[in-house]
Amino acid sequence: MAEKLISAEEVVKHTTPESCWVVLYGNVYDVTEFLPSHPGGSKIILQLAGRDATDEYDPIHPPGTLEENLKPEAKLGRIDPQTIVQASKPAAKEEKKDVEGPPPMESLLNLNEIEEVATKRMPEKAWAYYYSSSDDTISKSFNNAVYKDILLRPRVFIDCTKCDTSTTLLGHKVDIPIFVAPAAMARLGHPDGEAGIARACSRFNALQVISNNASMTPEQIVADAIPGQIFGWQLYVQNDRSKSEAMLARINRMADKFKFICLTLDAPVPGKRELDEKQSFKNAVKVASGVKTSDEPNRPGGGGVGQQLFFGTASDLTWKITLPWLAKHTNLPIVLKGIQTHEDAFLAAKYAPQVKAVILSNHGGRALDTAPPAVHTLLEIRKHCPQVFDQIEVWVDGGIKRGTDVVKALCLGARAVGIGRAALFGLGAGGQKGVERTLEILKAETETCMRLLGVEKVSDLGPRHINSRKVERDIFDGDAGLETFGLWDKVKSRL
Amino acid sequence: MAEKLISAEEVVKHTTPESCWVVLYGNVYDVTEFLPSHPGGSKIILQLAGRDATDEYDPIHPPGTLEENLKPEAKLGRIDPQTIVQASKPAAKEEKKDVEGPPPMESLLNLNEIEEVATKRMPEKAWAYYYSSSDDTISKSFNNAVYKDILLRPRVFIDCTKCDTSTTLLGHKVDIPIFVAPAAMARLGHPDGEAGIARACSRFNALQVISNNASMTPEQIVADAIPGQIFGWQLYVQNDRSKSEAMLARINRMADKFKFICLTLDAPVPGKRELDEKQSFKNAVKVASGVKTSDEPNRPGGGGVGQQLFFGTASDLTWKITLPWLAKHTNLPIVLKGIQTHEDAFLAAKYAPQVKAVILSNHGGRALDTAPPAVHTLLEIRKHCPQVFDQIEVWVDGGIKRGTDVVKALCLGARAVGIGRAALFGLGAGGQKGVERTLEILKAETETCMRLLGVEKVSDLGPRHINSRKVERDIFDGDAGLETFGLWDKVKSRL
Amino acid sequence: MAEKLISAEEVVKHTTPESCWVVLYGNVYDVTEFLPSHPGGSKIILQLAGRDATDEYDPIHPPGTLEENLKPEAKLGRIDPQTIVQASKPAAKEEKKDVEGPPPMESLLNLNEIEEVATKRMPEKAWAYYYSSSDDTISKSFNNAVYKDILLRPRVFIDCTKCDTSTTLLGHKVDIPIFVAPAAMARLGHPDGEAGIARACSRFNALQVISNNASMTPEQIVADAIPGQIFGWQLYVQNDRSKSEAMLARINRMADKFKFICLTLDAPVPGKRELDEKQSFKNAVKVASGVKTSDEPNRPGGGGVGQQLFFGTASDLTWKITLPWLAKHTNLPIVLKGIQTHEDAFLAAKYAPQVKAVILSNHGGRALDTAPPAVHTLLEIRKHCPQVFDQIEVWVDGGIKRGTDVVKALCLGARAVGIGRAALFGLGAGGQKGVERTLEILKAETETCMRLLGVEKVSDLGPRHINSRKVERDIFDGDAGLETFGLWDKVKSRL
Amino acid sequence: MAEKLISAEEVVKHTTPESCWVVLYGNVYDVTEFLPSHPGGSKIILQLAGRDATDEYDPIHPPGTLEENLKPEAKLGRIDPQTIVQASKPAAKEEKKDVEGPPPMESLLNLNEIEEVATKRMPEKAWAYYYSSSDDTISKSFNNAVYKDILLRPRVFIDCTKCDTSTTLLGHKVDIPIFVAPAAMARLGHPDGEAGIARACSRFNALQVISNNASMTPEQIVADAIPGQIFGWQLYVQNDRSKSEAMLARINRMADKFKFICLTLDAPVPGKRELDEKQSFKNAVKVASGVKTSDEPNRPGGGGVGQQLFFGTASDLTWKITLPWLAKHTNLPIVLKGIQTHEDAFLAAKYAPQVKAVILSNHGGRALDTAPPAVHTLLEIRKHCPQVFDQIEVWVDGGIKRGTDVVKALCLGARAVGIGRAALFGLGAGGQKGVERTLEILKAETETCMRLLGVEKVSDLGPRHINSRKVERDIFDGDAGLETFGLWDKVKSRL
Repeated sequence: MAEKLISAEEVVKHTTPESCWVVLYGNVYDVTEFLPSHPGGSKIILQLAGRDATDEYDPIHPPGTLEENLKPEAKLGRIDPQTIVQASKPAAKEEKKDVEGPPPMESLLNLNEIEEVATKRMPEKAWAYYYSSSDDTISKSFNNAVYKDILLRPRVFIDCTKCDTSTTLLGHKVDIPIFVAPAAMARLGHPDGEAGIARACSRFNALQVISNNASMTPEQIVADAIPGQIFGWQLYVQNDRSKSEAMLARINRMADKFKFICLTLDAPVPGKRELDEKQSFKNAVKVASGVKTSDEPNRPGGGGVGQQLFFGTASDLTWKITLPWLAKHTNLPIVLKGIQTHEDAFLAAKYAPQVKAVILSNHGGRALDTAPPAVHTLLEIRKHCPQVFDQIEVWVDGGIKRGTDVVKALCLGARAVGIGRAALFGLGAGGQKGVERTLEILKAETETCMRLLGVEKVSDLGPRHINSRKVERDIFDGDAGLETFGLWDKVKSRL
Repeated sequence: MAEKLISAEEVVKHTTPESCWVVLYGNVYDVTEFLPSHPGGSKIILQLAGRDATDEYDPIHPPGTLEENLKPEAKLGRIDPQTIVQASKPAAKEEKKDVEGPPPMESLLNLNEIEEVATKRMPEKAWAYYYSSSDDTISKSFNNAVYKDILLRPRVFIDCTKCDTSTTLLGHKVDIPIFVAPAAMARLGHPDGEAGIARACSRFNALQVISNNASMTPEQIVADAIPGQIFGWQLYVQNDRSKSEAMLARINRMADKFKFICLTLDAPVPGKRELDEKQSFKNAVKVASGVKTSDEPNRPGGGGVGQQLFFGTASDLTWKITLPWLAKHTNLPIVLKGIQTHEDAFLAAKYAPQVKAVILSNHGGRALDTAPPAVHTLLEIRKHCPQVFDQIEVWVDGGIKRGTDVVKALCLGARAVGIGRAALFGLGAGGQKGVERTLEILKAETETCMRLLGVEKVSDLGPRHINSRKVERDIFDGDAGLETFGLWDKVKSRL
Repeated sequence: MAEKLISAEEVVKHTTPESCWVVLYGNVYDVTEFLPSHPGGSKIILQLAGRDATDEYDPIHPPGTLEENLKPEAKLGRIDPQTIVQASKPAAKEEKKDVEGPPPMESLLNLNEIEEVATKRMPEKAWAYYYSSSDDTISKSFNNAVYKDILLRPRVFIDCTKCDTSTTLLGHKVDIPIFVAPAAMARLGHPDGEAGIARACSRFNALQVISNNASMTPEQIVADAIPGQIFGWQLYVQNDRSKSEAMLARINRMADKFKFICLTLDAPVPGKRELDEKQSFKNAVKVASGVKTSDEPNRPGGGGVGQQLFFGTASDLTWKITLPWLAKHTNLPIVLKGIQTHEDAFLAAKYAPQVKAVILSNHGGRALDTAPPAVHTLLEIRKHCPQVFDQIEVWVDGGIKRGTDVVKALCLGARAVGIGRAALFGLGAGGQKGVERTLEILKAETETCMRLLGVEKVSDLGPRHINSRKVERDIFDGDAGLETFGLWDKVKSRL
Repeated sequence: MAEKLISAEEVVKHTTPESCWVVLYGNVYDVTEFLPSHPGGSKIILQLAGRDATDEYDPIHPPGTLEENLKPEAKLGRIDPQTIVQASKPAAKEEKKDVEGPPPMESLLNLNEIEEVATKRMPEKAWAYYYSSSDDTISKSFNNAVYKDILLRPRVFIDCTKCDTSTTLLGHKVDIPIFVAPAAMARLGHPDGEAGIARACSRFNALQVISNNASMTPEQIVADAIPGQIFGWQLYVQNDRSKSEAMLARINRMADKFKFICLTLDAPVPGKRELDEKQSFKNAVKVASGVKTSDEPNRPGGGGVGQQLFFGTASDLTWKITLPWLAKHTNLPIVLKGIQTHEDAFLAAKYAPQVKAVILSNHGGRALDTAPPAVHTLLEIRKHCPQVFDQIEVWVDGGIKRGTDVVKALCLGARAVGIGRAALFGLGAGGQKGVERTLEILKAETETCMRLLGVEKVSDLGPRHINSRKVERDIFDGDAGLETFGLWDKVKSRL
């Protein structure tokens, strides 16, 4: 049946909360009914009402989103191509800040140079979303700075011709102890998106954790995976549990690729990322200030990309209820992301073997500012409950910029080290090639560092290869006895 | 009886210490006799002599000041409106640095942005008075920086859907653990003045302490209070005790609103606020240098707004004499502001129940530079005499810029956290709305922080939620035994 | 007898090491013979040869210098005033960087502002000499910064109406615990010179130590002293002991004014003050590079004013030989300046009562860079040999900029606090009035600080009023037993 | 036999990997066959193909290099001088950044000023090679900064007229405790090259260690040595051991000059010196990007001068195999350079007397970033295994800028202190004269420091003359028992 053709003149009339139409991929949709349930709030849609919103919509929604959220009758017909007047689109030019091609990736010598190129090339909104962190960005800066306060202790007169960076994660072999941490909306930064990252990872047999808020479907992302390449799926549990259950079922079906569920715990409510929120405010002024929307929640500071993504995310997860619920819906091992105290690492180990690993993370400094860097939590665990390292794997993320950072984390007991922004900036700088360059640099730097330490294998790295005294001074030194060794008995009742 | 009309030509002749007239609210006053007793010194009046001084006078004097200080016969008559030549008033333009309206308050995302707007919009003199602190501003900076040196310890996998920031202060319920600290001369910054702050506080059921040097009367300030809204009255005891006694009697009559007397102890003599003093010097040059005034005290550095306000303030207060005197003149509980050592906190607790709380404060860095921040004193008390927390309430102020700062103070044992400059800058940025935005931001940030720590109620916050080791290293560690535990016996004789 | 008149044309012919004439105060001198023994090296004189050198000579040589150093026959006659062609003197303009009068001293609110004005108004050479310190100026900066790392502990609810800054030094009453430390060449900075400083001190009954290298005679300096005003005389022992003995005899004759000899120990050889040396190099290039001088010592870096002054100073002083020699030539008590370790303070106390005080000093950072500030040495003594405070007086200098700095030093056990550069910058900013303003500010700040600490008398200040933990961490913690308590027996043999 | 003349037109045709000719010193060479074995990679030669490469080749290759690496038949003939068209050579001008002569060396007052002049005068490529250090240059900066954190403790009232900086190294007398550390490619910076450094050293009877990668032959360098002047030869063992053995034999023959072999251990693989690599990348773009070279190794980041020099260097050295091999090929004592932990210092001492000294060094921050400075390793040894100081000599290098730095290292137990970049910058600033000035300044500063400490002889310097507490806090404090005292037994099996 031929679809109905609708003129642009007609569409442009529907820009109010009472009747709101948008054009996506050539189709005209009536989204009036959907407005109140849009995760980002209705205002964001109203800004795009009455016109073609594909450019804004596409990079942040994976395929299938429309079908999942709109009733079939919401699709009113096709836009009549004859009636479209090409807008001058000055915005587009603004957004792409750099029109020349990227420099050759091999000319970029370190992750800072890659970030610099990405900053120039990415749309400002994408950059603001990736770059931003909460409040005064203290944790974000400290995540990196704390590595610089740790000194290395090179041993010499040791044959270092061989160097092997491979290790195993949850029993699966990877060639580098560096994984890509879950980070949302990769296509915001580059059309290669999460699939581009996956292809880059395949070159280094590196683990990738796919974000719950990826801009591509998991099926798309893992489509080109090579044999042995493994993935994890990040879960933000939704208030509407059935959505999460459906997603778990979908991941279970790809268990040859997805080897674990990564449950993120460090952001049950969104952090305050002002740089990101500023972007949102900038756009908001385009909507006539007279427009009132009934659904507008009381949001001090608006709500950037980050806050939109959190909409609908459950904040009522608990050890006692959520882990059994997960066990009902997946057999995949669970990796708990966002542990920031030795107490919670201690607790997580109690839930082995369902829980097989924790990721020490403060969400890249994006959740709670002045939360401790992973290095602190590693040292806390070493001090207060070192047995945890034997019971589960301990991964970390946050602040990694150099191979020496990777090695220091491994020396302190981390099994692997995640990069989030670094991967996205690699993507922004050069798509898949940029991510490859990022991993290539980190791998080479890691090897150089291991060799100069006189260490051949990842498993030989240990605390004797570093001097972390300057950092140890600042580690939490609370009532270890009360907090840890008697902890289990005291806390299990209230979990 | 029709008042006498006096021409501007006549008024302008009286500009000397021998005969000094000023016009206020259309009335002509002969203030010659009052000159020597003006708290700010006679020069300040002489600068305004012979002309209409209402613009300068009004924002820093509450109604009733004239009546209280001048004899009836000092009022000579009305200025003849026909004779007034409108001056070009370039000064007025200078003073208001920004003539555009303020930006929408909701576009300001944090307290720094509010301060930035206030700095642009407030008269320079007001800004200098609020912003200034003593000597090299080390304590002022440190007040804030010390919070940044404390790390948070987020606990995860805890249901954080609910969050309750309410608490009680001296038994009265407030909805946020944030109070407005006493700060003088609010109308300098915005015509809404202290009453505007009070109306903003009513929206959050927040406690406000009214400054002894408010630019409005206490009656005006609390006029619009809602049921349950509470206030404290700050007392600077005057050398002329009868003035203070009269004020206490006046406050006692409003005991439904005013729930305590806040006795300020940290500024028995004025600190050296050079920025404020510079302002005064700037104005002083307008007076012909030949003019000599007999009352001019020997003041190195002149004397800004701050020093003027201190004029007449008693510096001979003592535990032994002042507290009983207070008991004679009020039944309201006493809150002692300006405690900066554990020794004095220890002593204050000995005076319970008359003394019900202390405010750890270094006067916003405005009294003695390099005095310790409240965080230091909190940690000192925790270390040397923790029983104080059980005996009286311990409030703090100074350096609060973020909800995380609020939470850290609470974790260390503070019952509430005061904001001084922040409220005034809110007022300067947008009047009552600006103060509301300030409180709204702090409340939202406090909630986000509590949730991300996994804490539902204020009373559940504790030292286990922070890592203050970096700060603890620097806490006074004198002879604890001598100084504290044997202290009472030793010191009570010399109080 | 009428003096011979010599024409300028004749004088200008004598500009070589073989025949060198200069004009001073209208007299023509043949200084050829004196060239090799000039403390500053012959080059400095050769730069001035053949012309009137009074402007360069005068501010750095006290009266009597010519007579002391030249034979009578060196004076050849008077310059014939008819023959003098007034040079355009562009140099003079260059030197005085600021031709307007100084701002009113009372508008300067602190020592930094005074230094700023002095920097603008003083000749560059004078500024460079006063401002410079050795190597990388680390000690100079640290001298001040270390005070900022000490926190004050204000006690409240104490009657602070009275405040008395007076104390005694070596038994003599002074009104402030602040003295002017010996600093050379005051007339370089302002014609009021050392006598101007003395007159300023008389207003505050403050002690002044006169530099061995003063630009005025001791008689001139103390001429206007008021009853009770006291002075010390700084001694740099000369290689030619007879010169020093003559000077001691001269001081002994003024024992009503001069109450002690201050023997400087911290600069037996000159430090490397590069800023000062740069000045010298700048001037040196004016001498034709072909000129060779036989006396030129091997001086890497040239030699600024500082190095010139050290010429002839003895570097072979020892406890065992120098103190008895001093006893032979003066009955005045000895104050040893430049003590930088607890070991040397310990030794000095062994020489009481001849030695009555030490001045802990690193020569204002001008001798050895990274030498410890006086605060370190105070803390060292407190830790390793506190009995020293009972045996002799301990004074300090270096880094004082605020009254709070003064009070902190006193709390740590110092009996008085010296200012060197601050006095000279006061002089440079406004002559005697500038020094008065400097002392006035420091006194007022000291009083404010004492009051806010709740302390009435200097003698009541103690360690409980400060928190110096941050500094204590860094104090030398060597083998105290070995170094100190057994020290006397071990070292007395090798003194 | 008259050599064949080849025209420039003919030469210019050979610029491909298949046929590559270059002109050096007037001779035409076919280097096609040599391309794959060029340490710097074939691309570097291809950039110079078809033209006279003498300017590029000469300053980095000692005489004899061509003969050693090319077969006789590779030399095709002489370039026909008639056919040479002088290129405009704009590059040359670019390279020499400063065309004026250098300032007089005596006007440079410290090592920073010398470096500043060198930076202006040296070719950029040379500067980049000397200046660069690895990654984020943290170790390079820290090498110097750590000295500034150590305070000196001047003792006074001690006769300091005499000062003797001489000492012995491996039993040989030197006049200063400062040696020139091995640094490659001196002629890059100045034509005086390593021989110029040697002549400068002769003036101070200072030890020089000649780099394995010197730009002159050892015979040339030591040609002008004076009696008693001593040298060491740095060895980078080559994968082709016969080359190293030949070099050892050559050095053995000059045992009157060369007193030890300095085996460098801290750079078995090249560090990542990005500044240096950037230079290489800049040049690389001049080669048509279409050119493919089969030998190009997989080098992330290209490869600057530093990486080229490492080509062929063995990374399989071990205590057990390499030391005996050395013993077979030389009787000279061994100095091990690049020790960075007390464990390795401990091990080195076990190999006395073959090993006579170690040099604590992190390769000037050029190998592994965040490796510890020598000061840390000195303190580690003092703490964990002080007996090492009695068993072997401990030298240090890295970060020396001042005489006070030299003295501090000596106080901590170092027998001598090496300068690397400082010597090269001296060379760059003024050739041999610049190196002399560098040594003159360091010697004078060292003497001033010793005098002001009250110390006459190097051997009298000790820990009591410094306060290193601030640094000691950060020293590695691992399981000393495990790591050190039981170390020998545990490690000897796996050496």
